[in-house]
Amino acid sequence: MSELRKDRVSGRWVIIASERSRRPNDFRRDSPASSAAHPNDCPFCEHQESKTPPEIFAVRKRNSRPDGPGWRVRVVPNMFPAMERNVKSPAGKKDGLFVRRDGHGSHEVVIETPAHNREMADLPVDHIADILRAYRERFRSLEDEFPRHSIQVFKNKGREAGASLAHPHSQILAVPAAPLRVMEEVQGSRRLFRSRGHCVFCLMIQKEGEAGERIVTENPHFRAIAPFASRFPFETAVYPLRHSAFFSQIEDDEIPALAGALKHILRKLQSALGDPSYNLVIHTAPNPMRKHAAGGVVDRSYHWHVEILPFGSRAAGFEWGTGLIINPVSPETAAEVLRADL
Amino acid sequence: MSELRKDRVSGRWVIIASERSRRPNDFRRDSPASSAAHPNDCPFCEHQESKTPPEIFAVRKRNSRPDGPGWRVRVVPNMFPAMERNVKSPAGKKDGLFVRRDGHGSHEVVIETPAHNREMADLPVDHIADILRAYRERFRSLEDEFPRHSIQVFKNKGREAGASLAHPHSQILAVPAAPLRVMEEVQGSRRLFRSRGHCVFCLMIQKEGEAGERIVTENPHFRAIAPFASRFPFETAVYPLRHSAFFSQIEDDEIPALAGALKHILRKLQSALGDPSYNLVIHTAPNPMRKHAAGGVVDRSYHWHVEILPFGSRAAGFEWGTGLIINPVSPETAAEVLRADL
Repeated sequence: MSELRKDRVSGRWVIIASERSRRPNDFRRDSPASSAAHPNDCPFCEHQESKTPPEIFAVRKRNSRPDGPGWRVRVVPNMFPAMERNVKSPAGKKDGLFVRRDGHGSHEVVIETPAHNREMADLPVDHIADILRAYRERFRSLEDEFPRHSIQVFKNKGREAGASLAHPHSQILAVPAAPLRVMEEVQGSRRLFRSRGHCVFCLMIQKEGEAGERIVTENPHFRAIAPFASRFPFETAVYPLRHSAFFSQIEDDEIPALAGALKHILRKLQSALGDPSYNLVIHTAPNPMRKHAAGGVVDRSYHWHVEILPFGSRAAGFEWGTGLIINPVSPETAAEVLRADL
Repeated sequence: MSELRKDRVSGRWVIIASERSRRPNDFRRDSPASSAAHPNDCPFCEHQESKTPPEIFAVRKRNSRPDGPGWRVRVVPNMFPAMERNVKSPAGKKDGLFVRRDGHGSHEVVIETPAHNREMADLPVDHIADILRAYRERFRSLEDEFPRHSIQVFKNKGREAGASLAHPHSQILAVPAAPLRVMEEVQGSRRLFRSRGHCVFCLMIQKEGEAGERIVTENPHFRAIAPFASRFPFETAVYPLRHSAFFSQIEDDEIPALAGALKHILRKLQSALGDPSYNLVIHTAPNPMRKHAAGGVVDRSYHWHVEILPFGSRAAGFEWGTGLIINPVSPETAAEVLRADL
């Protein structure tokens, strides 16, 4: 069973997922790299539905049956979950400095397409919109089931970005602790809201619109930019123009617009940068703040968004050590490269 | 010229080092990887001293001359510095949300050995001690030269960890901003000091000694552990048993002991894990707190240490996005693997 452990100095929770563990020899550089699953064996391909646990949600053809073919997007439990619903003692245990907690929560996989080799960038916008609807559906359901958990939606594309299966998929985690980066953002924007009286993201989105040089793409609902203090080359962030703290509150007519913005960015990464690995992460205010904070400070100060980090953020070890980041590509250059028409 | 930019929400400073930039095509996966420098061309090899800027410091044979052969450890300016002494306006510029600062500071390279193919793990303990003496020497000098800067000492070993030259070397940066991870640690330990009245690191070092299961190696001056909330597989941290906030205050008799602990860890990484890439980082309290805080809270609450992160901390993109970390190897397992005799 997984365990959450708290670093007492930074306050960071880390998931120690030992049953996902490989043996020390698997970390050796000279060990054979596990090859991408052959399509015939891939549990995420159409007609292989029996190889996954029963589906939780799917976008599928009328009259098609759960756990059979005929789907477009399919959500199933992760076979090697980092978090599980059935744990003995979900409460924390504290032994002096050593604070730990059982891995209580859920871990789901969103299979983005029945086709093994069609990456999100290759899908039509309406298909990407279906994936986003699956995210929203599961998000809302998990928010209700785990009112005190933090819900994380993310996609690791390519081995360098941490993907272990080649078939395009994303993951949804419900964890009983707010991740450090999320708390940094929530606390930082709350502090700025208190001193300035407005959402710092709303102001930034407006100022970036005026400056123009860091805009990657925009439409009536979203603006995608290369952030002013980008940590990584060709990092992008997609912000809704309508203020909202919670991704789960995305509206029906916003979904195709977000899908269009993502399609532009992912296609440009493919064509301009040679199909790099990337991580896609949805940043949203922590779920526990949702009900209590309706109309409150977090609701007014935080602003959900999508972050895309190409290249698996290589060479991040030094940065992990210190928090000091050296980015050799300015966001103005990145935006210019990613903005040009396909 | 490099520029520091501040992310207003998190407070994080990022170095945008555009003259270190590669062209977008260099990021393409299909571009040829630049090969490691051939020893004959390597500017860090003995007899190639004229290929670097004049040396700043060296451990060398009696009667040998600066910038000639006969050295064991050599410190030179970085040819592609992320920070420079001569900048027009070291002060910050603020344009509403967009806060930036010229890259004022220094960036040095510590060439650890004249031999191109001898990694730190392969060097005798007394040679590693000489490298540590070079760190201390430069640290003290830079602390005086840049009283308001943060000094960072780090080593990227292997391409996956960000090294661009194969010849064993470390780097020393003086930057006009405290990195986020450092501030997290300083603030966290200060908060715990205020509520508990003691250094949380001192207590942790003692408790880890009693528990035993996460000890990797120890000697009369240092204890190396796999941290309780390890973020990455086989992460280790080396703590001095004597409380001290600042690495630059390491004493003469402590240096060989630290060298011995590092030698054990680096050799075990080689033998047990197949010579992985790694990052080695010295965590020390920020320099500006040094003089003002003699005997003050930071002096009493922070505890310097060395962190070693193997594998270039692969697949960190998701973690960079959220701050949520999943580590598939428990520190107890890591310590067992790294502890056993060579």
